[in-house]
Amino acid sequence: MPNKPEPCILCIFGATGDLAHRKILPALFEMSNAGELPEQTIILGIGRNKNKSDIAFRHDVLESIQKSGASDVDAITTWCEARIFYQGIAKGTQDEFKKLRAKIVNLEKKRTLKGNRIFHLAIPPVGFGPTVKSLGGAGLNASDGWTRLVIEKPFGRDYKSALELNNLITQFFTEDQIYRIDHYLGKETVQNILAFRFGNALFESVWNREKIEKVEIVVAESLGIESRADYYEKSGALRDMVQNHLTQLLTLAAMEIPLAFKAEDLRFEKVKVLRSISPIRAEDVILGQYTEGELGGNGVRGYRQEDGVRSDSKTPTFVALKMRVENWRWHGVPFYLTTGKRLKEQKSEIIITFRVPPVALFKSSDGREAHSNVLIIALQPNEGFRISFQVKKPGSEIAVQSEWMHFSYNEAFGPMPDAYYTLLRDVMLGDQSLFVSADETLASWKLYTPVLNAHRSLHNYPAGSWGPKEAEALKG
Amino acid sequence: MPNKPEPCILCIFGATGDLAHRKILPALFEMSNAGELPEQTIILGIGRNKNKSDIAFRHDVLESIQKSGASDVDAITTWCEARIFYQGIAKGTQDEFKKLRAKIVNLEKKRTLKGNRIFHLAIPPVGFGPTVKSLGGAGLNASDGWTRLVIEKPFGRDYKSALELNNLITQFFTEDQIYRIDHYLGKETVQNILAFRFGNALFESVWNREKIEKVEIVVAESLGIESRADYYEKSGALRDMVQNHLTQLLTLAAMEIPLAFKAEDLRFEKVKVLRSISPIRAEDVILGQYTEGELGGNGVRGYRQEDGVRSDSKTPTFVALKMRVENWRWHGVPFYLTTGKRLKEQKSEIIITFRVPPVALFKSSDGREAHSNVLIIALQPNEGFRISFQVKKPGSEIAVQSEWMHFSYNEAFGPMPDAYYTLLRDVMLGDQSLFVSADETLASWKLYTPVLNAHRSLHNYPAGSWGPKEAEALKG
Repeated sequence: MPNKPEPCILCIFGATGDLAHRKILPALFEMSNAGELPEQTIILGIGRNKNKSDIAFRHDVLESIQKSGASDVDAITTWCEARIFYQGIAKGTQDEFKKLRAKIVNLEKKRTLKGNRIFHLAIPPVGFGPTVKSLGGAGLNASDGWTRLVIEKPFGRDYKSALELNNLITQFFTEDQIYRIDHYLGKETVQNILAFRFGNALFESVWNREKIEKVEIVVAESLGIESRADYYEKSGALRDMVQNHLTQLLTLAAMEIPLAFKAEDLRFEKVKVLRSISPIRAEDVILGQYTEGELGGNGVRGYRQEDGVRSDSKTPTFVALKMRVENWRWHGVPFYLTTGKRLKEQKSEIIITFRVPPVALFKSSDGREAHSNVLIIALQPNEGFRISFQVKKPGSEIAVQSEWMHFSYNEAFGPMPDAYYTLLRDVMLGDQSLFVSADETLASWKLYTPVLNAHRSLHNYPAGSWGPKEAEALKG
Repeated sequence: MPNKPEPCILCIFGATGDLAHRKILPALFEMSNAGELPEQTIILGIGRNKNKSDIAFRHDVLESIQKSGASDVDAITTWCEARIFYQGIAKGTQDEFKKLRAKIVNLEKKRTLKGNRIFHLAIPPVGFGPTVKSLGGAGLNASDGWTRLVIEKPFGRDYKSALELNNLITQFFTEDQIYRIDHYLGKETVQNILAFRFGNALFESVWNREKIEKVEIVVAESLGIESRADYYEKSGALRDMVQNHLTQLLTLAAMEIPLAFKAEDLRFEKVKVLRSISPIRAEDVILGQYTEGELGGNGVRGYRQEDGVRSDSKTPTFVALKMRVENWRWHGVPFYLTTGKRLKEQKSEIIITFRVPPVALFKSSDGREAHSNVLIIALQPNEGFRISFQVKKPGSEIAVQSEWMHFSYNEAFGPMPDAYYTLLRDVMLGDQSLFVSADETLASWKLYTPVLNAHRSLHNYPAGSWGPKEAEALKG
């Protein structure tokens, strides 16, 4: 694998959208500043507006990059002028895609590019199928260099639709051209789960059913649905968070040791985990929806009162699941997945609870018989690790007390690169390690589709709480 | 076991000495302030000076307690008047011991004490035998209450002398009356080794030859021999530090899980460790003696130039040993013991190095193939724990880097009680857990006596270094 990306043209569908301006374009500017974007590489924004000029788009990009924190207007201006171009595609006709192709070929000629192309679909999911078809129709699925397709989540909305989408895409693109983004995999701390597990013999040697009592994966959001009612009403917490982000964390925490740290080996092990999971039982699913409540001292609306949400909406904003990974390593160890909106705090954590000592030699200062060691891998906020352990309480009485040891990723390394920086760079390098394979996506949907289809009761929880109390009973 | 000490009379031999004034008496005052010393309990200082009065001795005690940090002169005065008495014994004649007995009986009557007595031998080792004999001769080895004998180190100077001393003592006192002090065992962090090991399933489960590569026990002193040339010339580092302190740390780190946290169970397991150790091989011993050097920017003298040291002294001020604990848990795991005077820094640590992962999935940022996890139990300074582990270095390259997680005992709990506080309280409570049994002492001497008797070359090391370079080669 090359260490520095080859020059290419990066075509962003949805170039006038939020994701492009908040994440993708600032990441590219950063990459350029870090000397990781070859000089010839250019960015072609593609949007619905046919009347937008290169100059108008550059102006939008400049503003977005300024908003992201960069302050040197001259430098941004120079960058935009050298790198940024625009092409309108209003209806997605064959003709429009031919024009797109002409523009690409033309730009490549000017820059003496060898035909390396990335098509990044930063558009609503409904557009994935048609866009891929049109790209294929215009012959843009292959070139003299490499051609890569980047697809944002969600990849389908259940097993059937994911399979259909995949079948459609693979008519034009092979699996090694497809980069399915789960931006969680671009986070340093998520990648660090593997480094932590397989770089530390101390921890890997206790990473199994003999030593671990349970594994909890929590992604709690204090935010509501913001202005995304339209998307969220059709999606809900299971599609929005569990099928992708939480499941990725689960596979990284549970997977066997891969042959090497390479895409194919990682994907192989992740799929194995997914296929080891028993069908999720009805009693192991708790769905919830937030009602009016209080967060940070402010009253907030209930989900059904949000703009654009139906007043009788059945969309879950909270999911708690108990899962069983039925393999030699994990048999009997429950995995609990929990996510929700409008919860008390914003945090993403993997919580590994080790088994208590078989014999309690010491009294605990809080009167309990024995305490577990707990390892928390925190993804946000305060990325890092902490381990709880028992120490002797000073004084004559021989009693122990729980204390914590901390490691903060930020304190040790300073600010971390944004996930999109990491992921876009990997696309350019052709490294699929941090992208989701078709097999993974489909195995994941296979697991959750029965849950989506089944009728489950919806438990209310007040905004600002930790979710419905029924979820706690799951862990009972 | 009672939770609060019963009233008693504590007789301190060597009451005008350094140990009594720096450690024992301030600890007793502290204990009294904490409400842990019953009101009837009194302290009878015994010294060579026959002309010293109770009042004169109280004055000395007052000054010592002030020096130790207490400031309320009225409170100290009241305490001394109520608690402190003095008895001179110049030559140790039978007659003098009879007078001592009369004084004790008289004080007990006045205070309606039931005859609980402690004899604390805070005197040079040469006095242990004669004093015990005289106590026995005067019938002070038993009373209507309990009688306990506290002996400071060193207990003998080799196997034979320790055995003789023990035989002499046991003519008058039974093992359950004898409290052999190793003040390291009074330190909170030393006791914490056991709480840490047996309160944390996570660590105990990796505490064996499968997971651990080596164990190092380091007690480094930056101090020289101060004004103790007379003692040190006859003792040396092996007798002064290794046979007691370092060996205690070794047994605590290596012992099996005791049946309960009780004296008999702990002693049983500690002796088992000592008996598992193979005879120390000649090539596994490095002795050293410091020469002129520099410490903290100041020039310091060599050992042979210290006042009271012979200019051709062969006394080792440094010892490094490699030891093999030949049992199921530790076979093949070397234990390295290192101690010395005038070393670069003052520190006492147990360093557990875990085995590296069998396969290095990640490059290390320093180019090395794989790194061990290391657990350091720090006894001083900064009592606590730290664990090194590998984390992913931020950035696209998948490389790991060593980082540390810390726990500071002081930060969590504030200042800790002095070892003498803990130990004296345990003597009064009749708890022998933190004292050294005869079996332990003898097993330890049995191990080191051949080393003492053999002729070993003495390697010079400059004061302010980490010892002779030959010691590093031991770990090769």
